[in-house]
Amino acid sequence: MASLSSAPYKGSRDWYPDNMRVRDYIFATWRRVARRYGYEAYDAPLLEPLEVYAAKSGQELVSEQTYQFVDRGDRHVAIRPEMTPSISRMVAARRQEMAYPARLYSIAQFMRYERPQRGREREFWQLNADIFGAETIAAEAEIITMGYDMMREFGAQDDMYAIKVNHRKIINFMMAHYLGLDAVQAELMIKLFDRKNKIPPEAFRDQAIDIFGDAEAPSGLQKLAALLAAKNMADMPEEIRACSAVREIQELFTLLDQVGIKNAVFDITLMRGLDYYTGTVFEFFDTHPENNRSLFGGGRYDGLVGLFGAEPLGAVGMAPGLTMTQLFLETHKLLPELAPTTDVYMIVLGDALRGGRALARQLRDEGVNVELDFTGRKIDRQIKTAVKKGISYLVFVGEDELRDELYSCKNTITGDEQKLSPERIVTTVMDARRHRRVDIDADTIDLFE
Amino acid sequence: MASLSSAPYKGSRDWYPDNMRVRDYIFATWRRVARRYGYEAYDAPLLEPLEVYAAKSGQELVSEQTYQFVDRGDRHVAIRPEMTPSISRMVAARRQEMAYPARLYSIAQFMRYERPQRGREREFWQLNADIFGAETIAAEAEIITMGYDMMREFGAQDDMYAIKVNHRKIINFMMAHYLGLDAVQAELMIKLFDRKNKIPPEAFRDQAIDIFGDAEAPSGLQKLAALLAAKNMADMPEEIRACSAVREIQELFTLLDQVGIKNAVFDITLMRGLDYYTGTVFEFFDTHPENNRSLFGGGRYDGLVGLFGAEPLGAVGMAPGLTMTQLFLETHKLLPELAPTTDVYMIVLGDALRGGRALARQLRDEGVNVELDFTGRKIDRQIKTAVKKGISYLVFVGEDELRDELYSCKNTITGDEQKLSPERIVTTVMDARRHRRVDIDADTIDLFE
Repeated sequence: MASLSSAPYKGSRDWYPDNMRVRDYIFATWRRVARRYGYEAYDAPLLEPLEVYAAKSGQELVSEQTYQFVDRGDRHVAIRPEMTPSISRMVAARRQEMAYPARLYSIAQFMRYERPQRGREREFWQLNADIFGAETIAAEAEIITMGYDMMREFGAQDDMYAIKVNHRKIINFMMAHYLGLDAVQAELMIKLFDRKNKIPPEAFRDQAIDIFGDAEAPSGLQKLAALLAAKNMADMPEEIRACSAVREIQELFTLLDQVGIKNAVFDITLMRGLDYYTGTVFEFFDTHPENNRSLFGGGRYDGLVGLFGAEPLGAVGMAPGLTMTQLFLETHKLLPELAPTTDVYMIVLGDALRGGRALARQLRDEGVNVELDFTGRKIDRQIKTAVKKGISYLVFVGEDELRDELYSCKNTITGDEQKLSPERIVTTVMDARRHRRVDIDADTIDLFE
Repeated sequence: MASLSSAPYKGSRDWYPDNMRVRDYIFATWRRVARRYGYEAYDAPLLEPLEVYAAKSGQELVSEQTYQFVDRGDRHVAIRPEMTPSISRMVAARRQEMAYPARLYSIAQFMRYERPQRGREREFWQLNADIFGAETIAAEAEIITMGYDMMREFGAQDDMYAIKVNHRKIINFMMAHYLGLDAVQAELMIKLFDRKNKIPPEAFRDQAIDIFGDAEAPSGLQKLAALLAAKNMADMPEEIRACSAVREIQELFTLLDQVGIKNAVFDITLMRGLDYYTGTVFEFFDTHPENNRSLFGGGRYDGLVGLFGAEPLGAVGMAPGLTMTQLFLETHKLLPELAPTTDVYMIVLGDALRGGRALARQLRDEGVNVELDFTGRKIDRQIKTAVKKGISYLVFVGEDELRDELYSCKNTITGDEQKLSPERIVTTVMDARRHRRVDIDADTIDLFE
């Protein structure tokens, strides 16, 4: 038989321990901050009926990007491409029993059939943090502040990224009334705005003319230019400023300012692709010249719970992704060194395996992570394995050591070697574990235990 | 438009926070013990080429139970129904670079199209712990001891379950030489052994006669009876005892006995369905009369890495599942009360929202998990929400409290109420968090932070 390929499925990753540590670090940081804000963990099924996405997630996602199939029971299902419809469904199912505002988060995997490229994989991981039953702009302020605190927890400074904010109602007003576009034109213009930073100004202008039509193009382009020239809300054309949603945005900026967030900006070109947004939308945007792109976003989607037959409920959420977060941390050199969770590699000499097993068990019962080499190989080969694995301590167990109850304990990083009792091995190694992690974040230690 | 169903996909669960806490508790316990043994975390893609399972996972699993489909790029794939082929593929891909023995664990989700019933769901979660590059029986002893320590960590006593052990070579010898069956008959007999505890003795006897055929049935039944009457290895028919694999099993029992494991037994009727096992197989089996069933199993599968074009490698693994573990813990009343991770529900009086937001931020920066009620509702409705969520502490913030920097802090369980400074709120709440968790396991506290 020909052998099978050892490559992972296209667009997905094999998570070996080195990469997995980065993932665990990012997940632990998200989880810690989400809990700080009183969010409780949930999860949803991997599969949902396709119609859940057909309703509100947008044409492109459903018809081009879903992993959809018919199951053995003739159900047309999709591997979830996002979490928002699932959690809205779950809230709808317990609409009466839940306490509001409900604060919920999940860290889960998703699949979309897209062309894999830097920062984009077919199988991807996201944090989803959502608040249900919150009608006021305080909800948006909380979600954005939590996103800000996650960035802070990763070590990000304010000037490394911007928080762009817009509002669906302002977008709709601008399209229909200010620019005078019909629904079809508006959709094209939204797509053009989405591409704005990826195409040259002339191409943007040419495509805008196509959308306006020859007759309307001169005045349309002038109005567009006025919009795009405005650096903040005060510079916006008066008609836009008169829009009622502007007050909401201003209140949001006040709330963010009160907790010290200075890098939030109004950006009328921010669109967000998903059809279910009904109010504020926002995006955390990397400002590094080498990674000038959206990191993650979110917004208000008040209509989704109602789709599942339940009384409607205001909702705001955000969804940072693993791949983009990792890229951000790498670009800004914020990713710490992450050591294995194993504290001790136990090297067994001669016939001491039985004693070694007992000592390993004793250390483990005290909380030490011990890998025991039971192969009976030569010592230098055992040491080589430990070093290759990046484990910080070697403990040597032979007949003499077992008799004296004193074991050579060698730090593979400093080279220090001491003869220690089992109790001293525990304290030495556990202290070192804390120091090894302290450069990351004192709190993270616990999550790696 | 008709509203969409709010039910989860058949055979999968919606994990609301109450259930999610049970899942997190089980995962945290597995993870902690796996790390104690020096296992490092990995993960594999959700999708694999179907042929990966077709090779060695057994006919039934591939043709009846896989979620398989053709992707938009014409690849025939399956949602993983198990982890062993994936991790074998990953090890094969880095066969030269990895350090051996390699110890790896993952906690991941899987799907199989089976009829949902008690203890079985279509979407399910498993820990997989595997050791690669370990040729001796010490590997089996380590994996089984780790499984035993997981049970111990959950609070299980030895008499709550048994560890049944068998060996593929003994099974093969018994079928071909002792019972004199050909390959087709042997396969039928293996299936009959698997059903042994689920059918009446007469049905077992009748089906055995069918397999032997009329001519061979009398002597066949006699030999079967001798096998099944044996309570331990010493009682086994001499031909079986002469089998070379018996020495391995005896060595395994010695190794388990040395670390105090007394509930392991030889069971010649233990089969394990997967085709890839090549040596020892084992099963942790619940002995409770209401849940008398297999909890999880594992074994040696030396051939799988070689399937992916790499040099072969000895491998032993096990895979406890979430659903069965939860059933075991519930049946034996071992599941602890699990509180929300949120420590404080902050109740805001009158116009104190701005001050409340600042105080919440201050407490969060000290590690306290604070949910802030920004709704401006009446106090009693805010309190009701906190109680419904099961949060232990209420902190009241009004203009007076902000001026005096002293806040009423009420324990919702004991009813105690005190005026505390922010610093005292932190120490009170963090102490309580540790006590709230101490009944579970001191170590688990950290994982819930």
